[in-house]
Amino acid sequence: MTYCVALRLKTGLVMLADTRTNAGLDNIATFRKLTVIETPGDRVIGLMTAGNLAVSQAVLSLLLEQGVSIREGEPPQTLYTVPTMVRAAQLVGQAIREVFQVDGPALEAQANDFNVSILLGGQIGSGKLRLFQLYAAGNFIEATEDTCFLQIGEHKYGKPILDRAASYDTEVGDALKLALISMDSTVRSNLSVGLPVDLMVYRRDALKVALQKRVREDDPYFKGLRQAWSDALTRAYRTIEGPDWDF
Amino acid sequence: MTYCVALRLKTGLVMLADTRTNAGLDNIATFRKLTVIETPGDRVIGLMTAGNLAVSQAVLSLLLEQGVSIREGEPPQTLYTVPTMVRAAQLVGQAIREVFQVDGPALEAQANDFNVSILLGGQIGSGKLRLFQLYAAGNFIEATEDTCFLQIGEHKYGKPILDRAASYDTEVGDALKLALISMDSTVRSNLSVGLPVDLMVYRRDALKVALQKRVREDDPYFKGLRQAWSDALTRAYRTIEGPDWDF
Repeated sequence: MTYCVALRLKTGLVMLADTRTNAGLDNIATFRKLTVIETPGDRVIGLMTAGNLAVSQAVLSLLLEQGVSIREGEPPQTLYTVPTMVRAAQLVGQAIREVFQVDGPALEAQANDFNVSILLGGQIGSGKLRLFQLYAAGNFIEATEDTCFLQIGEHKYGKPILDRAASYDTEVGDALKLALISMDSTVRSNLSVGLPVDLMVYRRDALKVALQKRVREDDPYFKGLRQAWSDALTRAYRTIEGPDWDF
Repeated sequence: MTYCVALRLKTGLVMLADTRTNAGLDNIATFRKLTVIETPGDRVIGLMTAGNLAVSQAVLSLLLEQGVSIREGEPPQTLYTVPTMVRAAQLVGQAIREVFQVDGPALEAQANDFNVSILLGGQIGSGKLRLFQLYAAGNFIEATEDTCFLQIGEHKYGKPILDRAASYDTEVGDALKLALISMDSTVRSNLSVGLPVDLMVYRRDALKVALQKRVREDDPYFKGLRQAWSDALTRAYRTIEGPDWDF
């Protein structure tokens, strides 16, 4: 499995992905799921993938190298050349559909799902900072001020803290902390999501990446955060009074 | 959906179930999912169900009224008459299989899953306090000192706090608090799990129920716990220092 979370905030964008992949239960490997496209002064785009790794890699190859025509007859484009974020989302959707045309029937013939989902966030030129979630059919939704975060993969364990604490006004540094806490909850409760994690922080209108980092098991800050969060949760439940019901 | 959680501890047993059922998204109703069988001095058994409501009710009807023969030729028994908790688990398994024989083919013919899971906990006479989880095939697993809690239904949102804080040595009152926090996380993140909730607390070797209660939205303790937990989580993430990474 996979866990990726992205928060689009008033002040910027945070993207965080784990790196564990598995084919069955016993073939476990580390693959980068966060791809960052940066042309300083022009664009920053982050893309995170969940689902079938072969499908994800085929989609990425189209988006970064070979190019895709959004509509028939148009010249092929990549994420380095699309003019707006909406066009970028359409491009990703079209890439997913092209891979489905090639690989879908063979996957289906062997009873495998064509299974991929993608988070795509960023800003191009003077356009807005946007965040999209793409489905396996190539269609997509967009994060709004009401719903500032999107998740793909194993999203349930890490959702409660985001539901409570994340909002559009959350500061970028706090959002990064929330994303890491959300990831920690997931890693702790589900073996199929694992460290290291890759993260990207972008400040609105900067048109360059603020921070891009791989966080490993032995990272002192993440280690401290995990312990502090665990202690805080345990303390929190201890300080809540027990029920006054008779038993 | 449904969320039910049970903790089997050194000092007793806690069982907690929500009450929301839905047929599709727009047909939502309240059904009791926790059934308690109590014969003071002889037995206390709690049973919680998730899955297809018609299947659950058919299984319960066999277990409480009509009776089931664990093996062919044996006289039918109910949860009021089985001599041990292991026999109770076998009885529940056999009831599930009998309902599958009757309803399974028709469900399958209409592309519906035969879908049920059950948590069964309790103590009979001088036997041990035990907790089982039964699958739709009628087979089962048992909670141990290593893994003191079992969940059915929408279990992921509420698992992180249990993973961190629940252990076999947890006191019954604390376990009840943990179960309520776990339920709150689930209710908050998933609309298909809803209040009121039903709970049962049993103290080991008492052979009578310590507490059985329906907790409604306006229950002052649960309202306070939800607020306190939300405040504690928010405070906890605020007190954790931000990363010293440059961005």
